[in-house]
Amino acid sequence: MKAIISLSGGMDSAVVLAEALAAERQVEAVGFFYGSHHNSYENKAAEAVAKHYGVPFRLIDLSGVMAGFKSNLLDGEVPEGHYEDASMSKTVVPGRNIIFASIVTGLAWSREAGEVWLGIHSGDHAIYPDCRPGFFWAMKRAVEEGADGRVTLVAPFLMNSKGHIVRRGLELGVPFGLTRTCYKPQQKPCGKCGSCTERLEAFASNGVEDPVEYGK
Amino acid sequence: MKAIISLSGGMDSAVVLAEALAAERQVEAVGFFYGSHHNSYENKAAEAVAKHYGVPFRLIDLSGVMAGFKSNLLDGEVPEGHYEDASMSKTVVPGRNIIFASIVTGLAWSREAGEVWLGIHSGDHAIYPDCRPGFFWAMKRAVEEGADGRVTLVAPFLMNSKGHIVRRGLELGVPFGLTRTCYKPQQKPCGKCGSCTERLEAFASNGVEDPVEYGK
Repeated sequence: MKAIISLSGGMDSAVVLAEALAAERQVEAVGFFYGSHHNSYENKAAEAVAKHYGVPFRLIDLSGVMAGFKSNLLDGEVPEGHYEDASMSKTVVPGRNIIFASIVTGLAWSREAGEVWLGIHSGDHAIYPDCRPGFFWAMKRAVEEGADGRVTLVAPFLMNSKGHIVRRGLELGVPFGLTRTCYKPQQKPCGKCGSCTERLEAFASNGVEDPVEYGK
Repeated sequence: MKAIISLSGGMDSAVVLAEALAAERQVEAVGFFYGSHHNSYENKAAEAVAKHYGVPFRLIDLSGVMAGFKSNLLDGEVPEGHYEDASMSKTVVPGRNIIFASIVTGLAWSREAGEVWLGIHSGDHAIYPDCRPGFFWAMKRAVEEGADGRVTLVAPFLMNSKGHIVRRGLELGVPFGLTRTCYKPQQKPCGKCGSCTERLEAFASNGVEDPVEYGK
């Protein structure tokens, strides 16, 4: 079975890639540039992870498509703190995962891949409606109907925490040092934005140090 | 209520636009260039229809995103005959409507528009899985979940024939002469491809002549 992974460059989708390979899928990876501050750093990380696994990687430019979409992640200040904080809702990019899932579905259909694997998880549920189970199950159905059964969606960590994903990634030997989670547009991740905070806590909950080097 | 119409340049979405205005929606229109032979003719028609109604029109370029998608509409011969014919299934563009609906959802969310109106109809059901009721209802649910209730999908002609759409368009005074239905990459529509055939039959079923001038 061929599977396409939406590979963000962050740690979650890297573990999803490893999980798909462990499940003996023939994997291709796709990343999206959608014009956010931190996005080009993420894309480079995604490419490095794909290269590590010897998996083809295609980068799709959505910056024109998403020009004018309202989000602090695209054109404002990136807030610090926890995902659950109200301020973090400013980092929502309208329809981002709906759009990603749709495009990867069309690509999977064209490439005769029957599955699209996504890295959404329970830590995303509070802030991002298009990462919640209600969205996922409806979208999975829409994809199956719209692609006439040729493609389906898989989200192995839909109900799992980021701590669980770190643990599974350690088991699978995921090169976490290559991944990039930070929302800030700087070379070294900040360690303070909501995204970094959640990541550091996920490593801490496993009693393991994050191999990524953080800036000041 | 603000609504965004996915305006292809064909007759169906032009009638949908008129229907949304009749329902007192504040309308904006979006078209997509996805790299097909006939697509630039369609886009010009969409722009002309939007201009006729004094509605803002935005064209989104998906040609890079959909490069490599497998379809005769993108890189092969366009078959002649009826939509129902097996050969017409070659004109399916993988995931096209899933992708269009998703992007317009993100745009609607950003523009604070609560509705996305689509021109899918019963004549599309045989060939295009992402125009069928099963897809529409699942996708509508996915959009509502993914946008946390901010956006929904509307398809006024989901269960209606193209003949019905022509009749409704005549009632609403839709400028059918500005619309473009043909799948062939030529200035004047061919009158022979599946798309033209269905259109001509829809006008004939109303005892009305199509105002568009057909080539040889």
